[in-house]
Amino acid sequence: MSVQEAPARGGQSFVGLYEQVQQFYARQMQLLDGGEVDAWADTFAEDGVFVTNAQPGPTVGRRALAAGAREAVEYLTAQGIQRRHMLGTVSVTGREGARVSVRSYVLLVETARGGRAAVLCSATCEDVLELGPDGLAVLRREVSRDGLV
Amino acid sequence: MSVQEAPARGGQSFVGLYEQVQQFYARQMQLLDGGEVDAWADTFAEDGVFVTNAQPGPTVGRRALAAGAREAVEYLTAQGIQRRHMLGTVSVTGREGARVSVRSYVLLVETARGGRAAVLCSATCEDVLELGPDGLAVLRREVSRDGLV
Amino acid sequence: MSVQEAPARGGQSFVGLYEQVQQFYARQMQLLDGGEVDAWADTFAEDGVFVTNAQPGPTVGRRALAAGAREAVEYLTAQGIQRRHMLGTVSVTGREGARVSVRSYVLLVETARGGRAAVLCSATCEDVLELGPDGLAVLRREVSRDGLV
Repeated sequence: MSVQEAPARGGQSFVGLYEQVQQFYARQMQLLDGGEVDAWADTFAEDGVFVTNAQPGPTVGRRALAAGAREAVEYLTAQGIQRRHMLGTVSVTGREGARVSVRSYVLLVETARGGRAAVLCSATCEDVLELGPDGLAVLRREVSRDGLV
Repeated sequence: MSVQEAPARGGQSFVGLYEQVQQFYARQMQLLDGGEVDAWADTFAEDGVFVTNAQPGPTVGRRALAAGAREAVEYLTAQGIQRRHMLGTVSVTGREGARVSVRSYVLLVETARGGRAAVLCSATCEDVLELGPDGLAVLRREVSRDGLV
Repeated sequence: MSVQEAPARGGQSFVGLYEQVQQFYARQMQLLDGGEVDAWADTFAEDGVFVTNAQPGPTVGRRALAAGAREAVEYLTAQGIQRRHMLGTVSVTGREGARVSVRSYVLLVETARGGRAAVLCSATCEDVLELGPDGLAVLRREVSRDGLV
């Protein structure tokens, strides 16, 4: 989705929703970095899709999402590496009924035990979220890591 | 403007406006990083002013702002560099009628194609925004890049 | 506090409060980085507690907090170093009456005069805030710097 699609000037304000979206992301990133992969996977819709230019194909569904995250967490834990997904610069780009489109930036920082923090990469995160009675859930996420060729 | 000017303790809350300000910045930064320089310039008032300690004089008006941004974007594109203006730690420091004062932090991160992300600089961004019927627009921006002598 | 404690899916939304919390943190971090240590200490409760894995014991009370911050600011000023506490990914994890629990990420960036910005560390910041008539104040803060052994 082009950033251009949003209305001119300040864009729409999405008061109330915007806060919910930020809160949703903060919790979601912290669950992942904290290794709580099942709770993290539950922030996706049952058949949620995760696509990234850092992987050949999409990951589909909570079960597959949790499995992928668990593998990553186990690897990082074994290496003594703490990752932090610092997500910000959150822009709600549209809303159609219960579907909310959001584009944000992620700075991925890692620190090895006894080591210095290092910026691993920056990325954009383009989501279609679904706003339901239980809150937000990711229907589709596309993460584009900067610099990949 | 001194940070001290804000009221004691938690400062004012600016509920509703604060969200709008964050949303405005996120969209504005993404427009710039995405190379949409005309849409970016439109987030300034017609005679908006941009001042920074990284440039000798101010840039005034949308046309000049767009021209300056276009030059930067063309250079970065030619070099295969992706910039991300990660703006956060947003503090609304005051409001007088339609004029809103905001001070925020920017972390500028760049990644060359096939390269690693690198922090270029941190900066403070002090804005006077105007809240109009179409949303917010920058009347005056002062960016102070840290470390410049 | 475990991230898990928050409710499933999108978690609670804390509309209105969430904005206040973000605004509070932005102002608080900017006061510290700007060297306004007394105003910074006033963002804590009179008997506020600051604990971190980077220091052997807790700091208790505004007077001690201000003294500690002043020492750090004087050292950094003498060295010509500008610090920026970039706080984000803010998650309000609970609320009980006037007590609000928040977990956020901090990226600490420093720049020496004439030098390049460098990421010093990432950290989590777990706070118990008190919501009073004058706004928010920190009752207890626990900062965990990543990578410390």
